[in-house]
This record gives sequence, structure tokens and C-alpha cells, in this order.
Amino acid sequence: MEYMVVGLDVGGTAVKGALLNAAGDIVRKDVTATCYDAGQEVFVESLCDFACSLAQGYAINVLGLGIAGLLDPARTMLIESPNLPYLQKLPLRQMLEQRLNCPVIIENDANAAALGELRAGAGRGLANFLFFTLGTGIGSGIILNECLWRGEQGKAGEFGHVTVESGGQLCGCGRRGCLEAYSSGTAIVRMARSAAMNNLDSALHVHADDPAVITPKIVYHYALEGDSACRMIFKTMARGLATAISDVNNLLDIYTFIVGGGISQASEFFIPFVMDELDQRLFSMSRGRIKLFRAELGNDAGVYGAGFLAYDRLLRD
Amino acid sequence: MEYMVVGLDVGGTAVKGALLNAAGDIVRKDVTATCYDAGQEVFVESLCDFACSLAQGYAINVLGLGIAGLLDPARTMLIESPNLPYLQKLPLRQMLEQRLNCPVIIENDANAAALGELRAGAGRGLANFLFFTLGTGIGSGIILNECLWRGEQGKAGEFGHVTVESGGQLCGCGRRGCLEAYSSGTAIVRMARSAAMNNLDSALHVHADDPAVITPKIVYHYALEGDSACRMIFKTMARGLATAISDVNNLLDIYTFIVGGGISQASEFFIPFVMDELDQRLFSMSRGRIKLFRAELGNDAGVYGAGFLAYDRLLRD
Repeated sequence: MEYMVVGLDVGGTAVKGALLNAAGDIVRKDVTATCYDAGQEVFVESLCDFACSLAQGYAINVLGLGIAGLLDPARTMLIESPNLPYLQKLPLRQMLEQRLNCPVIIENDANAAALGELRAGAGRGLANFLFFTLGTGIGSGIILNECLWRGEQGKAGEFGHVTVESGGQLCGCGRRGCLEAYSSGTAIVRMARSAAMNNLDSALHVHADDPAVITPKIVYHYALEGDSACRMIFKTMARGLATAISDVNNLLDIYTFIVGGGISQASEFFIPFVMDELDQRLFSMSRGRIKLFRAELGNDAGVYGAGFLAYDRLLRD
Repeated sequence: MEYMVVGLDVGGTAVKGALLNAAGDIVRKDVTATCYDAGQEVFVESLCDFACSLAQGYAINVLGLGIAGLLDPARTMLIESPNLPYLQKLPLRQMLEQRLNCPVIIENDANAAALGELRAGAGRGLANFLFFTLGTGIGSGIILNECLWRGEQGKAGEFGHVTVESGGQLCGCGRRGCLEAYSSGTAIVRMARSAAMNNLDSALHVHADDPAVITPKIVYHYALEGDSACRMIFKTMARGLATAISDVNNLLDIYTFIVGGGISQASEFFIPFVMDELDQRLFSMSRGRIKLFRAELGNDAGVYGAGFLAYDRLLRD
């Protein structure tokens, strides 16, 4: 194998890796635990060791890194990251480039995942779409003209912080009324805990004494069993999504939305409501044209995208 | 003069025209009343006559047309237009091309104006910005990578219909909570009429018996004189703008916003409030970076843009 291109997806609990061949195909994948107890230096070292193990000891030509958090405009380091706080302000690109002696491309993980879905997943063949993940928070990446749209400082795609209810629910970002405060896993849990305590008719009420145990998975489980309070929770989160999707359609006139992340597994309980709401909200020329479907690569989207970013850099050089 | 390129900006009350030379500079401008009483055929004929008069009888090589309303995706006709209802569904491009025997480019007027500001106004030298007009309604055009972003069906830039208050004020589009329902001239008048009737301390109260006479200009006049109710109206409309601007920044990570239209003349009463609100809303990396300033071309932005669209087509051919 002539060229060694490696992509890594660095999350709060695991690091995924992929090796690409000279044609840009992914030929090997692996995963390892995120290891930071021993400090930043050891963490960076462990990333390099993991990348080298994927390359089977051959020199790596380019490393692509998808990482959770806000990067600096030059994409050399994390400047804000709830999941990887110990990496904040660390000169990550420089450290990796010195250690591996090759170019390193760093990208926000949702952006990388959007690129992964574009090239190898649900976005194949599409020119424009917004990819978003519904998990604890909401991440997103925007593809315009078959390219990742990064914006001027690289933070484009903060779909989770589009306002859906001015002055509404407090969001993790400190503002009020963001989509994330209505349609993320955190929002689902907040609504479910409230229902557990206040709605005697809901299956959730068995957790009234210990609402902390409630997870999105539990809400989904009861919704499957027909619990109307749980179904209403998904309907409420769908309303937020419809507002944000109609905003994106009004601004950018794009029509495809691809949803990934853990909560997307409950898509049967929110996608139909999102589509109903959109029919009432959109301009007539857009009505019936929105496509909202599930991502195909699951948790691998980010590592695929990181690999493709590295491969593109190899082709450019 | 070797090439004759003409741009027209067709509004509800006037048609503006510009002639461009072979270097793409505007060498002549004119304006005529919109004439539709005699029917659609006569209207189209009058547009052609006006264009020919600008070209001083020489054959026109390309005609560019900016027009108020939603165009079909192929940009051959208007499909929705509150200001030019008699042109709806009329095969405008075909009629003009047959009559003038040259290619005709049709574009939404706000998109054309955004292009005008990019090439000859406040947007010169900028790669990315959102241009919007505050008038009776709110129009907008988005420039990304120095190009007009039209979207998949050409209706991109409906900034006026971004949601700022879910389920809030009824908008002219039939939905609730759009920016246009909070920050347009129509919204200012709605708030001012309410103040005229209910706020005895406001200068507006002299119009309590005939609130229909109140215009944005009157509200601006009283604001200049220090009327606190009128200043509060501009502060309220500023809050809507800040919400929509922060949504655009979160999605696209662009930082420049250029405001035109009649209401922009009152910018001293809303821009400072918009900036204050944005400081509280944006992510730290975006705070203090937003630039919001007035358009430079005034009412000529649309006709400049229409001319540039025609000129670009000439260069392409």
C-alpha cells in the first residue's frame, strides 16, 4: 500500500479509527477507549499510537481528526468542549504533526460526520443537505454544493442553537429558546421527568420517586408500548425540529435533512409529526418537498468523514 | 458601443433601468412608472420599450430583470407576488426574449439587490454577507463565497420568515412568529397604532382617532424628538432582528449583515439595540464580531444587480 491515510473520531468516551487505501476506500476500522487520566501528553501519545496501529507501523501520510467541540478558526485546537474539557486550548494539531511528522486536519465531529454521510452514507449523490445528530446535545454540519460549509470561523452548523422559542427554555449554552432546549435527548429527559412526577396516567409515573433514572431510551420504550405522555414528548420535540427546519429552508432553500445520533432511533415517533408541522409552516412552493431521513453510517459517520478529509488533503498535496 | 446590457428593477410602483458598458460599468440610469392598467401584454411591451430607450435603439445583448416576488425554480415567471399580482403565472421570460430577441435573466429583486451591493455597494470586497431590506415586508439575499446563494428552487434568503417567536404574531405569509411580523414596516405601524390608542404619554396619541395615518416615517420622527414609546417600538423590532441574525450566524457562521430599505433610515434607533442583544446571544467566539451596517446603493441596488446579472451572462456566452 503506497499511501497511508488515517481518520480518527475523538469523542468523550471512545476514539474510532479508520484506515483508507489509495482509492479513498476504508479498509480497516478499530475503536479504543478515550484515555486521558494520565494527562494531556499521554492522551495525545495514545491517539498517535492508535493511528499508527491502524497503519500497521507504516508512516502515515495524512491524519484526519473529528473532534467534539468548537475549534479555533485555523482549526489547530479546541476552544470550547463540554465532552473533552482537558483538551481545551491544547495545541493539538501542532503536537500531532510533530509526533507523526505528517499533516493533520482537525474538524468538528458533526462536520466530519456530515462529510461521511455525503461520501459514503445517506447523502450520497446529494448537492445540499443539513445533517444533524440528536443526542445529549444537537450537532450539525451543512453541505452546500457537495462541500462542507464551514463559515468564516469554522463554527457553521450550530443548528442546535437556532432559536425556536424566543425567551423560552434555558439551553446548555446559557441562552434561552434554542432548538437543543426542546429537541435534544436532554430536553426529552427533562419533559419525561416532569411527566413522571405530574402525570399519574403515564407509565413514566413509576419513576416518580427517582426520575433521575429516566433516559431517552426509557421514553422510547414506553412510547412503543403506546404511552400517550411519552408519545406527546416526541411530538413536542418534533415541533421544535419543524421550526428549525423551516428556518433553514427559508434561509437556504435546501430540502434534505439527515438525522443521526441515538435519538434518531425513535424517528418513527417524531418524523411524521415534523412532516405534518412543516406542511403548515412552509411556503407553498416548498411544501411536500422536504425530505427528512435517518443517517446510514450510524456512529461511524464521523470517522469516515475524518478519513475523507485526510484523503482530500493527500490528493491536494 | 459594442455590447448593450440592460438591467431593470420591476417594483409595484416604478421600474428602474440601467445600461452597462462593455466593462460592466453602469453608464446610464432611468426610471419609469409601472404601467399595468392596460393589461399584461401592454405591460411587457412597456418594459421592452423602456429597455430599448436605455439602449438608445441599439439591439440589447442581454436583459437582466429584478422583480418582487417568488419565482419558479427555472426563473421564467412569478409564482407569488403581492406587489405584482397581475404578472403571476405570466411566461415573462419567454415573452421578453421573443420581443427583444436576446437572453433574459430574471431574479428576485432582493437577490438582485444583494448582488448590487456586493459588486458596487457596501458589500464590495466581502466574501459572505446577508443583505436584507426593511420595508413593508422584509426581503433578503445571501452572498456566500462572493456568489449569490439561490438554493435549490431559487427562493433562498427568506430571512423575513425565520421564526423569532414560535406561535407569535400573525405574519402576512399566514404563519405566526416570523421576523417580518416583528421587525418590518408593517410591524412598526402595528405597534405604533396600538401605542396611539393605549399610551396617553406618547406623541403618537394625537393619532388616537385616526391611527390609520401612522407610518414608519411618523414613528421615526417622534423617536427623533425623544418620544419613548416610539423608541421602544424600534427596540422591540431590534429584538426580532437580533434573534434572526443570531440564527444566521449559528447556522452559516457569517458575520456581515447589510440593511437596506426605507426603515434602514432609522438605523440609529435599532442597530445599537441589535448589537446589544447579539452580545448576549452569540457564542463567545462570535461575540463582538457581527457587523451590521446600512446598504450604500439605496433604491438602486436592485437595478445594479439586475445589470450585473445580465453582464455576467454576456461574459459567459
